[in-house]
Amino acid sequence: MPLLVVGSVALDGVETPTERREDLLGGSAVYFSYAASYFAPVQLVGVVGDDWPAEHTRRLEARNIDTSGLTVLPGAKTFRWRGRYLEDMNQRETLDVELNVMEQFDPVLSDAHRRSAYVFLANGSTRLQLKVLDQCAGAKLAVADTMDLWIKTERNELEELLRRIDGLVLNDSEAKLLTGDENLVRAGHRVREMGPSFVVIKKGEHGAMFFGQHETYVLPAYPTGELVDPTGAGDSFAGAMMGYLAEKSNFEPKTLKEAMAYGILVASFTVEDFSLDGLEKTSRRDIDARMEDYRKMLSF
Amino acid sequence: MPLLVVGSVALDGVETPTERREDLLGGSAVYFSYAASYFAPVQLVGVVGDDWPAEHTRRLEARNIDTSGLTVLPGAKTFRWRGRYLEDMNQRETLDVELNVMEQFDPVLSDAHRRSAYVFLANGSTRLQLKVLDQCAGAKLAVADTMDLWIKTERNELEELLRRIDGLVLNDSEAKLLTGDENLVRAGHRVREMGPSFVVIKKGEHGAMFFGQHETYVLPAYPTGELVDPTGAGDSFAGAMMGYLAEKSNFEPKTLKEAMAYGILVASFTVEDFSLDGLEKTSRRDIDARMEDYRKMLSF
Repeated sequence: MPLLVVGSVALDGVETPTERREDLLGGSAVYFSYAASYFAPVQLVGVVGDDWPAEHTRRLEARNIDTSGLTVLPGAKTFRWRGRYLEDMNQRETLDVELNVMEQFDPVLSDAHRRSAYVFLANGSTRLQLKVLDQCAGAKLAVADTMDLWIKTERNELEELLRRIDGLVLNDSEAKLLTGDENLVRAGHRVREMGPSFVVIKKGEHGAMFFGQHETYVLPAYPTGELVDPTGAGDSFAGAMMGYLAEKSNFEPKTLKEAMAYGILVASFTVEDFSLDGLEKTSRRDIDARMEDYRKMLSF
Repeated sequence: MPLLVVGSVALDGVETPTERREDLLGGSAVYFSYAASYFAPVQLVGVVGDDWPAEHTRRLEARNIDTSGLTVLPGAKTFRWRGRYLEDMNQRETLDVELNVMEQFDPVLSDAHRRSAYVFLANGSTRLQLKVLDQCAGAKLAVADTMDLWIKTERNELEELLRRIDGLVLNDSEAKLLTGDENLVRAGHRVREMGPSFVVIKKGEHGAMFFGQHETYVLPAYPTGELVDPTGAGDSFAGAMMGYLAEKSNFEPKTLKEAMAYGILVASFTVEDFSLDGLEKTSRRDIDARMEDYRKMLSF
């Protein structure tokens, strides 16, 4: 089944305790697409400026990602994000954000994209996510991400979105912010009560929690000692999760759990290098080998 | 197999965001013993003052914990700890510590205790832990806990201890402090290189990591929404883990992993109420039922 993702496409600047990189291919929809492409055909919808290197588009197309929905706005500049990771790499500071083309981003989906059964509304303003959702007539499973900014500034829109989507993926601090509950287990259930059938809370190096109607569970992160750049881990997680659901063409509880595990493992490869470099050198076979390790790790 | 634990016996004051309790039965050796008693006969060695309520001793004896090593020092006061949990209950402040009898604690083990095959050196000064270890002629498996204070003030003694024990249990921030490495996976391996055959890093609500010669793994915490008082979670974890090893009378990798899981689950019952109240109302059958849930949670 094809999988549609709408979200940011970016040029990132990343500082880690040991390195500094500029103009990295990044953005929520990019990490998502690349991770999802191990499992299913992906349709990426986003916008860039004319400073966007064509080689980045080629890099996505090499993975069979449909970039027909990637609009280049002439005379405008690509969205840019710059961040710094602290010594404890789970902590980061955003140093600079230049919205640029994202300010005008108002996607009109093609007919083919409107028919996509699996839809992911990657991080972006909630208003924009609602506009996209309005166009997704064929969606069987619509899942969204969100962040602190929208929780604070577009609360009403977010509540509307939550009533209309099937799943929400957010991180631990966002779940606490959204519910005002510091206990993640309670927070997860509360978010689910706001509308979606399932909620996934991403905990970075501590894995992810799932809250469904009949089950709650936690899966730990894969313990990699090779943490180079955590950027895109959450989007890779969501990409692999949604990609696996699209591959299996169902979202039964059993499939959702396997999808969570794939999300965790693909994210573990993402963080082992900058930008998409970690994934680029990783094959589906590598992922499946790590999955075998992971299953062993969790069985006793 | 009997299991010996030497550590603190305390009267605790605990403040949570919603409640405040005084004179609670607490201390590392107490939580440890109570948790271990589900699995094996426990020998507790500690010291209290004459303010110690005899009912507390009876409460331990009711669980078949051998308290013959619990010395009452006349004219002295029991060790007291007071702490406050913040809104995010994973964070706590120590408000007050009165060492009292702990300052004179210098245990001389009985012959029976010296012969114990399973030994746990619960939190206490490293010097004291070394003195106890000197007496443990019969130990087949000696495991210790430590904390930031001793890492900072008794570094040399701790390095000696690490060369002499089989296992170390410590929490995430302590592992980072001990190794100077912010990456927990690397930190765990580094601690192991300092001597012990295995290292366990406790991560509170995020579970625990195991580092052995041939395997590294992470097990998540059991997602309980009933977090009332986290005090003693780490000691209960260690107690159940060691208790299970003593019950099985081996510490093969397979047994160690099951023991880790029991540690996590018993700790999840501890935090559901104050002091030992969570464990007191929990039977071995309850633990095994939760274990079944936990295994299901981790299989896919």
